[in-house]
Amino acid sequence: MKEQSTVRLGIIGMGGMGVAHARNILEGKVPGMRLAAIADRVQERLQGYGDDVKNFSDAIEMMESGTVDAVLIATPHYSHTPLGIAALERGLHVMVEKPISVHKADCERLISAWKDRSIVFGAMFNQRGNPHYGKLRKMIQSRELGTIQRVNWIITDWYRTSAYYGSGEWRATWGGEGGGVLLNQCPHNLDLLQWLFGMPKKITALCQFGRFHDIEVEDAVTALLEYPDGATGVFITSTGEAPGVNRLEVAADRGRVVIENGVFKFERTEMPVSEHSRTATHSFKKPEHWEITIPMGEGSSGHVGILRNFAAAILHGEPLIAPAVEGIHSVELANAMLYSTFTQQPVELPLDSSAYEAALKARSKA
Amino acid sequence: MKEQSTVRLGIIGMGGMGVAHARNILEGKVPGMRLAAIADRVQERLQGYGDDVKNFSDAIEMMESGTVDAVLIATPHYSHTPLGIAALERGLHVMVEKPISVHKADCERLISAWKDRSIVFGAMFNQRGNPHYGKLRKMIQSRELGTIQRVNWIITDWYRTSAYYGSGEWRATWGGEGGGVLLNQCPHNLDLLQWLFGMPKKITALCQFGRFHDIEVEDAVTALLEYPDGATGVFITSTGEAPGVNRLEVAADRGRVVIENGVFKFERTEMPVSEHSRTATHSFKKPEHWEITIPMGEGSSGHVGILRNFAAAILHGEPLIAPAVEGIHSVELANAMLYSTFTQQPVELPLDSSAYEAALKARSKA
Repeated sequence: MKEQSTVRLGIIGMGGMGVAHARNILEGKVPGMRLAAIADRVQERLQGYGDDVKNFSDAIEMMESGTVDAVLIATPHYSHTPLGIAALERGLHVMVEKPISVHKADCERLISAWKDRSIVFGAMFNQRGNPHYGKLRKMIQSRELGTIQRVNWIITDWYRTSAYYGSGEWRATWGGEGGGVLLNQCPHNLDLLQWLFGMPKKITALCQFGRFHDIEVEDAVTALLEYPDGATGVFITSTGEAPGVNRLEVAADRGRVVIENGVFKFERTEMPVSEHSRTATHSFKKPEHWEITIPMGEGSSGHVGILRNFAAAILHGEPLIAPAVEGIHSVELANAMLYSTFTQQPVELPLDSSAYEAALKARSKA
Repeated sequence: MKEQSTVRLGIIGMGGMGVAHARNILEGKVPGMRLAAIADRVQERLQGYGDDVKNFSDAIEMMESGTVDAVLIATPHYSHTPLGIAALERGLHVMVEKPISVHKADCERLISAWKDRSIVFGAMFNQRGNPHYGKLRKMIQSRELGTIQRVNWIITDWYRTSAYYGSGEWRATWGGEGGGVLLNQCPHNLDLLQWLFGMPKKITALCQFGRFHDIEVEDAVTALLEYPDGATGVFITSTGEAPGVNRLEVAADRGRVVIENGVFKFERTEMPVSEHSRTATHSFKKPEHWEITIPMGEGSSGHVGILRNFAAAILHGEPLIAPAVEGIHSVELANAMLYSTFTQQPVELPLDSSAYEAALKARSKA
């Protein structure tokens, strides 16, 4: 690791997220990180950042300019792969927006370009900083919950209007985004799902294309997940529901957790359910349980938290909250749900990345 | 319809439910109905009901004795079909416990024996009397909710211990009950599901056999339902969870309903979601909605309500709350979930009843 006191960051793509990240850094919210350069093909987007921020219309030129140590890629999804590979090959640290790529084969290409492990390669999964999910993960890993039996995530508060989908030609197209709600809105949820519970071995999904809007990709999804140990999962999402809900329910051998509306409830059985079932002499009575509300803990650190961690990882070797290599899992989950719908079959994981890429390309050209 | 003032009822099968029904009638809770006879092969079960209640060790003998106008069939599941057919063929009114039969082909046989429409033929779907479900049905049928988008029923509060499953050789076997939680615990929920939302056109299910208990049939189910109009459903049940939950969620064009823990919540959007999505000029903002708690209404009339209705239907032509012919739907749903698991394929409805019967018989012999 190089001895350095400040990371000179270049942002590629000054759309909504790029601008937000730039502002956070310029406001000094990220210790050890300086906004050194920005790159965008659209000239107007580069203006107004002052003389200390170098402007580039070409991202590769920025990478080779010697003005940046690290890049943050906030461009449309498909370009994450070639830009990420270009940056890694030039020895730059990389933070990539979610999803890290549109499909699994591109994730594999991107990840295989990460050869020098002294390069810090992170992904913008800022919801890992949400204290509720962090606590749940600790409770799972410490076996406080016992064996997980069932996961049910209903995340239907991604409401979008027809006007939203009409706001860009590339939006909600196979060629432009590689999918709909699964690729645009859900990468965080899918990342948390695998971060909390690991990867399922089988997915059967019903993705509904243009059900609520005049679009070619999915705006409603119901997916059934099977985990290697017999646990089951259901993932439901939509951009057509209002008011919608974000409700994560986990049934386990020590009771049931529900995270909904910012409240974390835990019904904790006094003994493991499996032990109770095995030893009880009666037929119906459930084990006694405690009604617990888990405190929220410190507020979510969000995007800034991920950037602080990225800077600290580069400067001091701090472990990454969200290594980019883990970003392949949320993409694989999204791809598998779509592939199950394309093929009208359950999909065994790991997903055949070439087969999926071919299926996606066929749709992109249609 | 015969002129009569009292229905003379004969109960067949004096196990748990038969005894409970007998007690309700003897306590005078069912106007116009008298307990005239009881039938059971086990002699001890017939004792203690007094001289006014005739005893029969053979159900057919009771049907032909001239002492009863109607029978209530509360025997193990498989015998519902032959006993129901025998009673209908002898011109007796019939109330059959749920499920009306174990599999769809038997339902068809039973229903085809109902030729004389002056015979009253009902099923013990007492949960239709639960005022919450009744109100929800009215709200659906009056289009108060608008188009139904998504139904999600998590009914995992059917906890049963290993001792329960050890309490009878026939329990939780293909040959004895024709299935597990779907046939024994869930007929009410499956009946309500079709009563509220109609039948799906396709079911993809994962039934897990002996996951939580040492049994050959299913004790955990996750099913994905597709309705003809594009609405989706998820039905989750288990006897292995504690404390478990009974949560029915309905997303519709006018908002979202949740019935859970005896509380009926309705988030009602001020305009239909589809209209809002089509006309809004912004991208994200949801339509305003009201938070409503729907009052419970009169308490559930339960088993007594169904028997009162049965008596009134015989005596005064009152419409049945639960005609037995509708009982085929809950059986078909249960069968289709199992068949999807047997075949590892989605099942299109209507289910092929002969194919399912053959598959079930093969398992019963195994």
